[in-house]
Amino acid sequence: MFRRNQDENSLVQRIERGFAEKQAGNRMTLKLGLGDDAALFAPRSGYETILTCDWFLEGTHFLRDKHPADAVGWKCLARSVSDIAAMGGQPRCFLLSLALPKSHTGRWLDEFLHGLRRAARRFCCLLAGGDTTRREEILINVTVVGEVREGRAVLRSGAKPGDVILASGRLGEAELGLQLLRRGETLAGRKDPALKKHLYPEPRLTLGRWLAEKRLATAMMDLSDGLSSDLPRLCAASGVGARIEEAQLPLVSASGNKRPQGFDWLHLALDGGDDYELLFTVAKSKVGSLPDFFERIPLTAIGVITKDRALLLTGKRGLEQPLANAGWDPFRR
Amino acid sequence: MFRRNQDENSLVQRIERGFAEKQAGNRMTLKLGLGDDAALFAPRSGYETILTCDWFLEGTHFLRDKHPADAVGWKCLARSVSDIAAMGGQPRCFLLSLALPKSHTGRWLDEFLHGLRRAARRFCCLLAGGDTTRREEILINVTVVGEVREGRAVLRSGAKPGDVILASGRLGEAELGLQLLRRGETLAGRKDPALKKHLYPEPRLTLGRWLAEKRLATAMMDLSDGLSSDLPRLCAASGVGARIEEAQLPLVSASGNKRPQGFDWLHLALDGGDDYELLFTVAKSKVGSLPDFFERIPLTAIGVITKDRALLLTGKRGLEQPLANAGWDPFRR
Repeated sequence: MFRRNQDENSLVQRIERGFAEKQAGNRMTLKLGLGDDAALFAPRSGYETILTCDWFLEGTHFLRDKHPADAVGWKCLARSVSDIAAMGGQPRCFLLSLALPKSHTGRWLDEFLHGLRRAARRFCCLLAGGDTTRREEILINVTVVGEVREGRAVLRSGAKPGDVILASGRLGEAELGLQLLRRGETLAGRKDPALKKHLYPEPRLTLGRWLAEKRLATAMMDLSDGLSSDLPRLCAASGVGARIEEAQLPLVSASGNKRPQGFDWLHLALDGGDDYELLFTVAKSKVGSLPDFFERIPLTAIGVITKDRALLLTGKRGLEQPLANAGWDPFRR
Repeated sequence: MFRRNQDENSLVQRIERGFAEKQAGNRMTLKLGLGDDAALFAPRSGYETILTCDWFLEGTHFLRDKHPADAVGWKCLARSVSDIAAMGGQPRCFLLSLALPKSHTGRWLDEFLHGLRRAARRFCCLLAGGDTTRREEILINVTVVGEVREGRAVLRSGAKPGDVILASGRLGEAELGLQLLRRGETLAGRKDPALKKHLYPEPRLTLGRWLAEKRLATAMMDLSDGLSSDLPRLCAASGVGARIEEAQLPLVSASGNKRPQGFDWLHLALDGGDDYELLFTVAKSKVGSLPDFFERIPLTAIGVITKDRALLLTGKRGLEQPLANAGWDPFRR
């Protein structure tokens, strides 16, 4: 855990100072955070604890010269919080492991902490501790601890044949944002919705909790690596297959906003990562009780769970083809 | 969290297979581990949850060509479990974040997992999930979740002037082991107690729990960076100072075992890292009830807590000098 030293301006002191004040009034479950060997978390009775962690590494998950430090801070927390949303839970606290070059312990760190603090406030997630070290590359690992009412967590394994498959939001929007960033969009472009989605994703916490509490979703996960990689995981966990309808996919091009030219929208929707939307299944009899929009986020039926374990994509002309798994996989590259 | 893919031999599948069987009968508190967005942990009523995480990075914390993969697997878990011991708690489960070069997903990974599994069994700590990615350097981050009876955790902040300062074990032994390893000791040398301590440290779980349950320790932490770095942290948290007696330090040279020549034993004891012994304080009136050995581990009174916030070392001839903070600090190197 964080190792304080006697230098008042050390990395740990600066991280802790940045969070100490904002957290003071919000200690329902976090009984002892910064400054000891470990943190103490008092789980509420009747709740289960959710645990998740994710890498966020320079060169793999973000680029030092392309991604603003503020966005790195926001996103490293947002993507782990998204796993909590995908179980129908609420985040409570997080541990931050940070390795930095000495050159980045000044302004870069300030901006990083600014983005991280904003995210922590937004997601009601307190900094409980972490570990720091020096390194030539920027390495981040975030563990988020959340809670869900006992027995209410929505797993990947509950999908049944006949269930309708739904997705929140527009698929491929974050990947579009990444491609715009690579093309050299300026920071002013952060107002572009796709760039914003890539830099500052919003985990679907309220939607996930609502689906869990109303017992609407039979299975759920978040879309982090792209539909064509993530749907097979949900199906494998449930022991089922799926048929996706191309015509029903919520493509970015259909959002009504003015969009740049020259993108393969279907490819973005199937294989684009980092959307952090929810992918979930609902019994056919209950689909009617879902709204078209949940807090302005579109909910779209994109296919159906099948008994046959194949994964198929039905094209616009009715032709079926296997859904090729082409999302993000660092070990395939 | 772990992202399974369709390749049966993928990294995640191999990690999960290695742990699945051994864990099957031991699910008291871990309700859902591998294979979903996050893990579900059911805390026992009357217990608080302890959270801690640590980096374990090639080049910083271990050397690819010097440290056996088996020892890397053991130690990456042992050092975080040591933080749980230092609160008087017991580990329950852990998350493993692992970044590996493709060249290390074969034999190296097997040996790493072998050491990790042995440690997990020894510490009764189940693998609950994690994250993997590809990287040219071996990067490890471990989060351990533990439990402690409500109100019984021993913090760093409870030391009072007059309390006696104690340490378990021999100080500097792991640093001696590292120096032997750097000198090129062969793997046969793993039988050397110092090398063994460096490669396969044993967190003082039983001792920590005993001190907490008997309410003997007023403050406690583990010695990870060396006494001269760690004692100031305990004192700062408690708002006190300390006076250490050189003559009382449990030097490695005094252990009775045959020891190599040419080492500065005092320097090793003060500044050597990675011992994972416990440093704790006990009210003067209770010191008499402590045994000299706890399960064969010596417990040694090494000094006293003072009201004056200075940190002093009293030499063998009675001369006092400031205790210079010279332990491990990656940002000072």
